[in-house]
Amino acid sequence: MTPSALDALIEALRCLPGVGPKSAQRMAYHLLQRDQKGAARLAASLGHALDTLRHCAKCNTFTEQEICQRCANPQRDHRLLCVVEMPSDLAMLEQTHIFNGLYYVLMGRMSPLDGIGPRELKLDKLVERASDGVVEEVILATNFTNEGEVTAHTVGELLRARGLKVSRIARGVPVGGELEHTDIGTIAQALLERRAVADET
Amino acid sequence: MTPSALDALIEALRCLPGVGPKSAQRMAYHLLQRDQKGAARLAASLGHALDTLRHCAKCNTFTEQEICQRCANPQRDHRLLCVVEMPSDLAMLEQTHIFNGLYYVLMGRMSPLDGIGPRELKLDKLVERASDGVVEEVILATNFTNEGEVTAHTVGELLRARGLKVSRIARGVPVGGELEHTDIGTIAQALLERRAVADET
Ligand SMILES: [Zn+2]
Ligand SMILES: [Zn+2]
Repeated sequence: MTPSALDALIEALRCLPGVGPKSAQRMAYHLLQRDQKGAARLAASLGHALDTLRHCAKCNTFTEQEICQRCANPQRDHRLLCVVEMPSDLAMLEQTHIFNGLYYVLMGRMSPLDGIGPRELKLDKLVERASDGVVEEVILATNFTNEGEVTAHTVGELLRARGLKVSRIARGVPVGGELEHTDIGTIAQALLERRAVADET
Repeated sequence: MTPSALDALIEALRCLPGVGPKSAQRMAYHLLQRDQKGAARLAASLGHALDTLRHCAKCNTFTEQEICQRCANPQRDHRLLCVVEMPSDLAMLEQTHIFNGLYYVLMGRMSPLDGIGPRELKLDKLVERASDGVVEEVILATNFTNEGEVTAHTVGELLRARGLKVSRIARGVPVGGELEHTDIGTIAQALLERRAVADET
């Protein structure tokens, strides 16, 4: 005898990562009972974000334009392309204020166990982007987790096969660590100490 | 340089209980990148729930009608009124299949430290409901937590002052425990063994 509108809301909240049936129920009660304004704002923001956000044609991050402000900025060094997993990683690198190149955001990482390979990550889009004739060096700034390392390895092989210079940020980031949880100084150091990726074959 | 639609979505997600800045960001990326259908469904469900759900004029739970199906059901025993904190508690009691009376859902509990007292819980609405001349016994089925006990005590005093018979479900529910996490058998026992609340003065 739960009203169907409440059932539907509880079910819909479960699409959020890490939200099971009990916490979806708690969230629904909270929104309806204690924060109807917040609920209305959330509904509107979701709709607005779905309507207006797309992926930048150049760097693949979320943007409201065809090409984001950063990629369109002639003041940035278009010869350097830094590859990261997520927009939050890009934000961390920007906070170091020592990198003036451009980015490519994978929006994920290789995860063979979850069936996320080069095709699912659309690595061909990155290869095409890096092969524009302007990019001279690609800096791999994926995480130093197992998945991030596999991603860096695969991306590096694909790009070097195209004759591009590829480097990896220095392992100043703790092994097993994630950029998002690393202090800015360590990230800055890792960026400065990036090393060329040598052929393994 | 985060797009404003993304910023707004991340900010809006923080209205969910237990969601801080990092998990709001992770949720936003997940919705936009991996589950746009889920995001659209969530936005629609929120809007629909806000538009259609109200509080039952009799029992105060969420409903799409002026008076919910349960309160309008002549097959139920309208002389018994069971007071619970949340709709999820009501659902647990219904699952015992041994109670055929009606409910009143407080939609919360007293919490003096958080400034939630009789006024904030709108206990006058419950007193008015219980004083309809039909209700003969009010069963207090708030949780056996500190806040639930304070709530039961306060509600009991208010109702007995009106000359109503008040009982409390038996403390078969473990002390400090919450209905939502209790097995159905224990809840059934507690309901059967409810005891009259004696005057303390
Ligand atoms: Zn861009
Ligand atoms: Zn009702």
